[in-house]
Amino acid sequence: MSDAPGRWMAAEIAEQPAVWSRLLDDTAEIDEVAAVVAAAAPRFVLLAARGTSDHAALYAKYLLEIQHGLPVGMVSPSTTTVYGARPDLRDVLLIAVSQSGGSPDLTRTVESARAGGALTVALTNAPGSPLAGAAAHHVDIRAGQERAVAATKSYTSELLALHLLLAAVDGRSATAARELPGLGAQVLEDGPAVAALAQRYRFADRLVTTGRGYAYPTAREAALKLMETCYVGAQAFSGADLLHGPLAMIDRNVPVLAVVPEGPGGEAMHEPLARLRERGADVLGIGAADAVAGCSSGIVLPGDVPDDLSPLLQILPAQQLALHLALARGEDPDAPRGLSKVTETS
Amino acid sequence: MSDAPGRWMAAEIAEQPAVWSRLLDDTAEIDEVAAVVAAAAPRFVLLAARGTSDHAALYAKYLLEIQHGLPVGMVSPSTTTVYGARPDLRDVLLIAVSQSGGSPDLTRTVESARAGGALTVALTNAPGSPLAGAAAHHVDIRAGQERAVAATKSYTSELLALHLLLAAVDGRSATAARELPGLGAQVLEDGPAVAALAQRYRFADRLVTTGRGYAYPTAREAALKLMETCYVGAQAFSGADLLHGPLAMIDRNVPVLAVVPEGPGGEAMHEPLARLRERGADVLGIGAADAVAGCSSGIVLPGDVPDDLSPLLQILPAQQLALHLALARGEDPDAPRGLSKVTETS
Repeated sequence: MSDAPGRWMAAEIAEQPAVWSRLLDDTAEIDEVAAVVAAAAPRFVLLAARGTSDHAALYAKYLLEIQHGLPVGMVSPSTTTVYGARPDLRDVLLIAVSQSGGSPDLTRTVESARAGGALTVALTNAPGSPLAGAAAHHVDIRAGQERAVAATKSYTSELLALHLLLAAVDGRSATAARELPGLGAQVLEDGPAVAALAQRYRFADRLVTTGRGYAYPTAREAALKLMETCYVGAQAFSGADLLHGPLAMIDRNVPVLAVVPEGPGGEAMHEPLARLRERGADVLGIGAADAVAGCSSGIVLPGDVPDDLSPLLQILPAQQLALHLALARGEDPDAPRGLSKVTETS
Repeated sequence: MSDAPGRWMAAEIAEQPAVWSRLLDDTAEIDEVAAVVAAAAPRFVLLAARGTSDHAALYAKYLLEIQHGLPVGMVSPSTTTVYGARPDLRDVLLIAVSQSGGSPDLTRTVESARAGGALTVALTNAPGSPLAGAAAHHVDIRAGQERAVAATKSYTSELLALHLLLAAVDGRSATAARELPGLGAQVLEDGPAVAALAQRYRFADRLVTTGRGYAYPTAREAALKLMETCYVGAQAFSGADLLHGPLAMIDRNVPVLAVVPEGPGGEAMHEPLARLRERGADVLGIGAADAVAGCSSGIVLPGDVPDDLSPLLQILPAQQLALHLALARGEDPDAPRGLSKVTETS
């Protein structure tokens, strides 16, 4: 492999359909952990993660609230690691998500949750990691080594592993998910179109991303990818939160990336999109053909994909956009300034 | 009163100590609701809010996790309003926070939570509002009419009402809180220094705010105030999340506002501050004298304030900064473009 900037990120983006197939072809470990969770019948779920994995955890929050009818909280690790909180977590399922499994604050959060009576599950790309060891149960996302600092394949394999795990807890088959590798390969073929689109943002200093429901984690992850690879000030808002204040700062010179899939999440974006149009905003749409047609530019995703699986496809053009925009700016997205692959926060 | 830009925001910022005294002088309603909550002995808590009130809810999350040992989740209203989720919420306390009590999605969230078995409490500035009516119990934050679109006094009265409510649930007296009006008045006297500091950011297009623990909601609210009044791209990160990616986009030209109070939350900012210094970032510190001394500029807050009460004081200079920066830019923070006082999202 050449040593061109972004070579790892490009390769890892391209690898995603194959990674998904690997997870789909052998779900033995996921089914085993799902059986433990189903037997425990938790009444409340906590999710602990940082960075990209936090967006995968947020996706799981929507799955759990909508499909399982469970109340869900995102852990603020500092309450344990900084303030020493020791909550009573009986009847609680805590799922920690981390590519490296190496962040001390997550490990301490899991240890503390376990001591507080929670059923603990870690999803990592590193079965030998401290986090995997700290949790009572572990799911290996099997993404293979990730070399680019900007996470891509580990993100979508976290999404898929969480989807498969939670479907299995409910005894639902994951038939629709089996279409994902083929659909993902199809979306990735649009790479040249995304590369062309990236030129348009060459001199953008900041931008806003937005989405709602299952698509909101995509907006968050797209913003993080753009921040860490392109050093652009990218801000993510749910379509509803956007209307509670941040809309004021958007004008013709602040580009917006809107995730507008088929289904309820995309439909709930109609009002935010209308308000953005009123403000003259330049909107790049990713999603359903009709919604994208109403945007300034966009990438159309394959139709008839269930709302809850669409996030795996939505993020692909956003990853490509981050890659190509970083290259256009002369940056190396494989090794962003000031970052390392394992972030150790305490 | 004159019709000068920002007159309402300035008046409402100044009014805060008096508003706090009003809440502190009559806690009958808060004590009554606290007794109901204590009797119910909830095992999980959900918080529902949008915009500024979401930051007050986030403050309550830290109080509940640290001081009550309860697992807490922030509601994603779309799971109910867009996807029709109907979770099982027995043993759950749901607290909805809203200045106007007028956002339909929060009202529907409360109705749905009540139907799902949750004990529901609304905190609003509008006892006659739909949200106040939908919840089983209501706490009036008694901030008086708020005319500026950018919320200030309603934010800190939400913080104080939540503090008093949760202390009363545990049967703790709120003695330390009685010092807040005097301390707040003292902090507000620094207004001219903040106005002078604001000039420095006259041409900043974006900035980053950061804090950890109890101070993280302050970082979030400071960013929102700056976005909605000054149209600057302000991004908030917890001190830990900052190190997981966003640090890359910070250089000498992206100013940082760091909340660095006395106590564990401020101490946990040592590493993020060191990393920001390595990147040559320009940091405005708000908080403890020694931490502020290590920043490029700053506002020192009174010492010996408990970590969990300090957010009421921390936000005051940030509100003044937003006001003066908006005025310096020729904007009217009382009526930001594209926003109205009651945001109706569904």
